[in-house]
Amino acid sequence: MNTYKIVLLKGDGIGPEIVDQAVKVLNKAGEKFGFAIQYEEALLGGSAIDAAGTPLPQETIDKCKAADSTLLGAVGGPKWDTLPGDQRPEKGLLGIRGALGLFANLRPAVIFDELRDASPLKAEIIGGKLDVMVVRELTGGIYFGERGRKEVNGVPAAYDTEMYTVPEIERIARVAFDMARKRGKKLCSVDKANVLESSRLWRATVARIGAEEYPDVELSNMYVDNCAMQLVRNPQQFDVIVTSNIFGDILSDEASMISGSIGMLASASLGSGKAGLYEPIHGSAPDIAGTGKANPLATILSAGMMLKYSLDQPEAAQAIEDAVSAALKQARTPDIAAEGLRTVNCTEMGDLVCSLL
Amino acid sequence: MNTYKIVLLKGDGIGPEIVDQAVKVLNKAGEKFGFAIQYEEALLGGSAIDAAGTPLPQETIDKCKAADSTLLGAVGGPKWDTLPGDQRPEKGLLGIRGALGLFANLRPAVIFDELRDASPLKAEIIGGKLDVMVVRELTGGIYFGERGRKEVNGVPAAYDTEMYTVPEIERIARVAFDMARKRGKKLCSVDKANVLESSRLWRATVARIGAEEYPDVELSNMYVDNCAMQLVRNPQQFDVIVTSNIFGDILSDEASMISGSIGMLASASLGSGKAGLYEPIHGSAPDIAGTGKANPLATILSAGMMLKYSLDQPEAAQAIEDAVSAALKQARTPDIAAEGLRTVNCTEMGDLVCSLL
Ligand SMILES: CC(C)[C@H](C(=O)O)[C@@H](O)C(=O)O
Ligand SMILES: CC(C)[C@H](C(=O)O)[C@@H](O)C(=O)O
Repeated sequence: MNTYKIVLLKGDGIGPEIVDQAVKVLNKAGEKFGFAIQYEEALLGGSAIDAAGTPLPQETIDKCKAADSTLLGAVGGPKWDTLPGDQRPEKGLLGIRGALGLFANLRPAVIFDELRDASPLKAEIIGGKLDVMVVRELTGGIYFGERGRKEVNGVPAAYDTEMYTVPEIERIARVAFDMARKRGKKLCSVDKANVLESSRLWRATVARIGAEEYPDVELSNMYVDNCAMQLVRNPQQFDVIVTSNIFGDILSDEASMISGSIGMLASASLGSGKAGLYEPIHGSAPDIAGTGKANPLATILSAGMMLKYSLDQPEAAQAIEDAVSAALKQARTPDIAAEGLRTVNCTEMGDLVCSLL
Repeated sequence: MNTYKIVLLKGDGIGPEIVDQAVKVLNKAGEKFGFAIQYEEALLGGSAIDAAGTPLPQETIDKCKAADSTLLGAVGGPKWDTLPGDQRPEKGLLGIRGALGLFANLRPAVIFDELRDASPLKAEIIGGKLDVMVVRELTGGIYFGERGRKEVNGVPAAYDTEMYTVPEIERIARVAFDMARKRGKKLCSVDKANVLESSRLWRATVARIGAEEYPDVELSNMYVDNCAMQLVRNPQQFDVIVTSNIFGDILSDEASMISGSIGMLASASLGSGKAGLYEPIHGSAPDIAGTGKANPLATILSAGMMLKYSLDQPEAAQAIEDAVSAALKQARTPDIAAEGLRTVNCTEMGDLVCSLL
């Protein structure tokens, strides 16, 4: 029997409660599909600051590096918001992405049929379906460039550097083209090439990789401001979007909100090996932590993505997706409550998915 | 009688036809409210590249500096898209903003009552009304920072620098606080302070200006990724938004698309003096240039904004707004065509607004 080593980074706020549900579901899937999982917990974010004085202890990096994959809840909260920039929970998140070399962030924005009405967009804009995959570069650009304070003409200033090397662009382009090839064969690369030099290098490099290695995938380019509009005007035009770290941060959040299913969306961060880091796209929601109101489905689906992308268990992954769909027809957590369906808490939703698996 | 000197930068694509309509309306307003306008044309963008070999001739800068204000159509088009970055039409636009010191870009996203149904958002999300003012910093940040190519560990790379000085942030903050004071007294400053050093300086500086000079305005902060979501989820929560050049580019386009009235939206770019540059937020639409399909209303409303903000003619400005509203009840250009209303071309719409003035 296959045994996988998974690190759990439960994190802050609702993190622990939602990860606990995903673990239950993973265990049930293991029983059914014949694999076992060994879990190890490690600290990240605010809870790591409280316990170890740093948002990313070296021990966490070591454990994640030794594991087959990592499942993350969420980090951050008002408690740590006043700490200086390099001691904040977010720094742990950026740090673990960097330390594990997770340069590709896959953020699907899909509408769950059961939740069609939750989209803020009109039905005719959403159309038949919405299924956009945003591939965000995750370990480069202005997130990791040189930054600091300085004096300019005698006045104080602060700066950050957006920088991309050709190999950084090539590897994320390949991830996106591969993804497009498996889906609708349409890739839209988003940049601001009419202003930024890094965008011009980005555009040229993506075009070259496409022409040389992916002639079967249709490549288009779009400016980031236009993309922010088009996601609202006609999201159906998109299949896979590939873009830089900062643009991907903004556009993937916009896309997920358009789906109306933000409590349901999972994400995967991948590097050059098989291991990845999986997490819901929503945050740590400190205001509802411990109340039972948290929706564990995005984390459960993140565990499903992990089975598919990192652990070669596509059938178990599909079974989890199906169980989630089935659960949505029977009960809802408060964030997606619907008339005629019973409202359940976080644990009950986890149990329901297990029972439907 | 007051006589104003206005430079017309008709630009490319539909630029000339829409500016011509705005000129007719300005002249009519002058007759009615007792002022005269002397126009001077100058070249910008693609047409300047064709005629003078540069997107921003020195003569254009000189004329604009000597004028009471500038009215711009739109620049750019596929014809010039393959030129190198520093010779493109957009470079003319960035250049004129910089040369005239127009550091504050006001981009209202409003829904015209007559066009409520055009919003891609559901009626219950739009609610009673939508009236968001995005104040975008326009002559700093990554648009104007150092950029270039270099080698990093033996591989080619490209970089751009996001930089803000304290005085740059202070002056845009004051414009935004002043604007909020005249409106709903709520200002939301948008940044990525959990990652960027320039955002941390931005946040601290805006907070200080607020506390010292605008205690009557309620200031909040929001991360840019969250703002991209909130604009879709609940745009009514915003009154005035202030943000950096690049974030303002993205968010103002998103906000205007949400309004569904993008062919109707005007913008103003202001510096420390009274003179400004006024333009529609939409682009040069080369595909419909010369066909008569262009909607001149955003440019007409831009001329109205000019009368209000730069020429001290608030009554004439209001009269133009009212005439536009009245025109919308009678006829439409093809982009906003509506059943039961006759469809008119660009010139006919200009004439209609004049006749209703
Ligand atoms: C918390 C923050 C640093 C992070 C990011 O911007 O990458 C988050 O917004 C995300 O998108 O995962
Ligand atoms: C054309 C482009 C350089 C410009 C910008 O990004 O400023 C445009 O998008 C705008 O917003 O006015």
